[in-house]
Amino acid sequence: MEFKQGDRVRIEKNGTVYEGKVMPSMEGYITIKMNSGYNAGFSMDKVKITLLENNGKNTNGGRNGGKGPKTAGEEIQKSGKKLPKVAILSTGGTIASKIDYRTGAVTSQFTADDILAAIPELREIADFKGRVISSILSENMDSESWQNLARAIVEEIEAGADGIIVTHGTDTMMYTAAALSFMIETPVPIVIVGSQRSADRPSSDNAMNAICAALVAISDIAEVSVVMHGTTSDDFCEIHRGTKVRKMHTSRRDAFKSINSRPIGIVDYNTREIKTFIDYIKRGERPLKFKPGMEPKCALVKFTPGSGPEILDHYIDSGYRGLVLEGTGLGHVSTKWIPKIRKATDAKMPVIVTSQCINGRICDRVYDTGRDMLKAGAIEGEDTLPEIALVKLMWVLGQTDEFDEAVKMLREDLSGEITKCCFK
Amino acid sequence: MEFKQGDRVRIEKNGTVYEGKVMPSMEGYITIKMNSGYNAGFSMDKVKITLLENNGKNTNGGRNGGKGPKTAGEEIQKSGKKLPKVAILSTGGTIASKIDYRTGAVTSQFTADDILAAIPELREIADFKGRVISSILSENMDSESWQNLARAIVEEIEAGADGIIVTHGTDTMMYTAAALSFMIETPVPIVIVGSQRSADRPSSDNAMNAICAALVAISDIAEVSVVMHGTTSDDFCEIHRGTKVRKMHTSRRDAFKSINSRPIGIVDYNTREIKTFIDYIKRGERPLKFKPGMEPKCALVKFTPGSGPEILDHYIDSGYRGLVLEGTGLGHVSTKWIPKIRKATDAKMPVIVTSQCINGRICDRVYDTGRDMLKAGAIEGEDTLPEIALVKLMWVLGQTDEFDEAVKMLREDLSGEITKCCFK
Repeated sequence: MEFKQGDRVRIEKNGTVYEGKVMPSMEGYITIKMNSGYNAGFSMDKVKITLLENNGKNTNGGRNGGKGPKTAGEEIQKSGKKLPKVAILSTGGTIASKIDYRTGAVTSQFTADDILAAIPELREIADFKGRVISSILSENMDSESWQNLARAIVEEIEAGADGIIVTHGTDTMMYTAAALSFMIETPVPIVIVGSQRSADRPSSDNAMNAICAALVAISDIAEVSVVMHGTTSDDFCEIHRGTKVRKMHTSRRDAFKSINSRPIGIVDYNTREIKTFIDYIKRGERPLKFKPGMEPKCALVKFTPGSGPEILDHYIDSGYRGLVLEGTGLGHVSTKWIPKIRKATDAKMPVIVTSQCINGRICDRVYDTGRDMLKAGAIEGEDTLPEIALVKLMWVLGQTDEFDEAVKMLREDLSGEITKCCFK
Repeated sequence: MEFKQGDRVRIEKNGTVYEGKVMPSMEGYITIKMNSGYNAGFSMDKVKITLLENNGKNTNGGRNGGKGPKTAGEEIQKSGKKLPKVAILSTGGTIASKIDYRTGAVTSQFTADDILAAIPELREIADFKGRVISSILSENMDSESWQNLARAIVEEIEAGADGIIVTHGTDTMMYTAAALSFMIETPVPIVIVGSQRSADRPSSDNAMNAICAALVAISDIAEVSVVMHGTTSDDFCEIHRGTKVRKMHTSRRDAFKSINSRPIGIVDYNTREIKTFIDYIKRGERPLKFKPGMEPKCALVKFTPGSGPEILDHYIDSGYRGLVLEGTGLGHVSTKWIPKIRKATDAKMPVIVTSQCINGRICDRVYDTGRDMLKAGAIEGEDTLPEIALVKLMWVLGQTDEFDEAVKMLREDLSGEITKCCFK
């Protein structure tokens, strides 16, 4: 039987009844908007569907009217068992997005409640509380968005949450993960999760990612982590440390990779078990601390051959307070840039050197160029990712106005962003 | 027997005699500077070493004086067989570098002749002609260096070279490879090779890389390629297309990877055989064409969350002629940047969008932000790497002053930098 958009239908799955209006759906799938306003998607071969209203016209099915099996909406957010309390803070992004059928583009509209409605399995893992922080695509986030989000997380932890899930667009997820890592010392897991494919695509990764995130949120991993598909199959999610993760593909579901570190661990999607690979901070090990200061006037400058050093003048003369250079190889820029590094550090602007190679460690002691960069006051970013070094710089300059103190902090591993090296 | 720095020694290996002064060497290895000024390094357990002079004092060995087996220097650059002619153009870099024992840093000093002297096996592959183009670390190269190098390559091809090897620092090798790819349509292989470890380190990759490069230079792969270690072992080199390669590690010998494409092929170091994986342009398929125009006033701007759009004003107002944006995910920047994209394209500056994800393809038709960027005139870089897109932009603007013509060229695959996509 075919259902048209606007038809009112009743869907039965595993003894639970869902009622709603048919929305545009992929072939083989049916998506309905329920009375609650929540959406739910189903594989058509796994459910029983009854037509209630033919696009506005009553049929034999009639309205459920509260009789028979209870509807999903009544069950949402509550379960009979005593479960851990997890707060879901939604910021927008594909995990909470759908296609805008007016423009054909994907827009960000759903809230934490929608996610809970669409993924009923979540209710077996924890008692959830949803909270909308923002509803923007992640490329529009900035340091103020990070601070607002961090503040909400801290409030939820103070209110007794056993774990936090942040739903986030994948584009800038790594930057937010790093910002939260520096701003919050957390006694409970803070898990950032998103989706590379929107919920109305059958290949969507949102359900598995959300379930994995929930499992990490109730685990003993009291760190800021990013939890996303580990492979292109639905076999496991990886748990990435918030300061060691990078989006490494524009569209693949396994786009997120730990760089210069193993992931903290994985969540096996079949057994629902967590396996860890490296040391991590355990639940309750640290008391909650919140240091939200952030200096937005920091820039990441990527060096390319022949590029003019005047770009550093631009930032120095525009009142910027610190710079991250994304150099070549072990951490180099043209020798023409070196006097400008000196100019910046003379102006009490820290300059951190990172590498566009992404993988590997900075070492400015091998070649003459690097040694001259160090003499000009550049700070080796070690194996910190360029993007994470920028967030670190913003946070450090939000904590102190003292140049020497800032340089000292920038050289230290503050939140897992620098891995210890065998050579030093 | 122990040898001290400054001792004069005779080393016999496979019937060839090398004489020279002992230089600082790693344990188990001996490096000598020969009369020719060339250096050679040996594993001590594989050679017979005789002390000739004890740090300036004669011993029983005496000078070879031209008697007995001929010294390596006399054999260099000539072989009895009729072999293909390969020109080695040296630009500097680690493959041609050694430690400056004054400062302890690695400097770039050796020429093509030194490479031939240090790697005698090369003489079995081809007749080599060495030519020094420059002796700079690759972070100091610019579009003028690329043009000088390209001009020398074209001269050597016109003079009858069957293949070209360019020795190059690894830091900016990918940029040079792209520049040569756009500037030269070549009937013979142009192979760029370097080394991640300097020649006086036992783990140096320079010999294997140089031998693999020589094998590709005499092959039928008439493209600009980068030939470097494929793994951390000495098993094979990969042959990367010059517009699809990226340095992906600061120090590993297998730092170079083909991105968004398979490598053209590999060179098996044991069998010396080449195996190819994808289509490539064959020797003689194209006549030689040289279009050296390059516009240096182009910039690569990496977007980060909250970063101010004024950076685009800086480039627009400073007389730049084109921009590459390194956006997030499928190719996004903050919506605050979109009016500045419009400002740039209104000023007839092409703006290409690429992704900091590195892997994957730009698609600005999925989300509202991307669609608005396209409306503002941005060009999707497809699966072109950000760094390669910059070089392409520089080259295209060196070919034409017409904005519409430039945009048309930028949308096309000019030299393998855009892989065709199934969806379009």
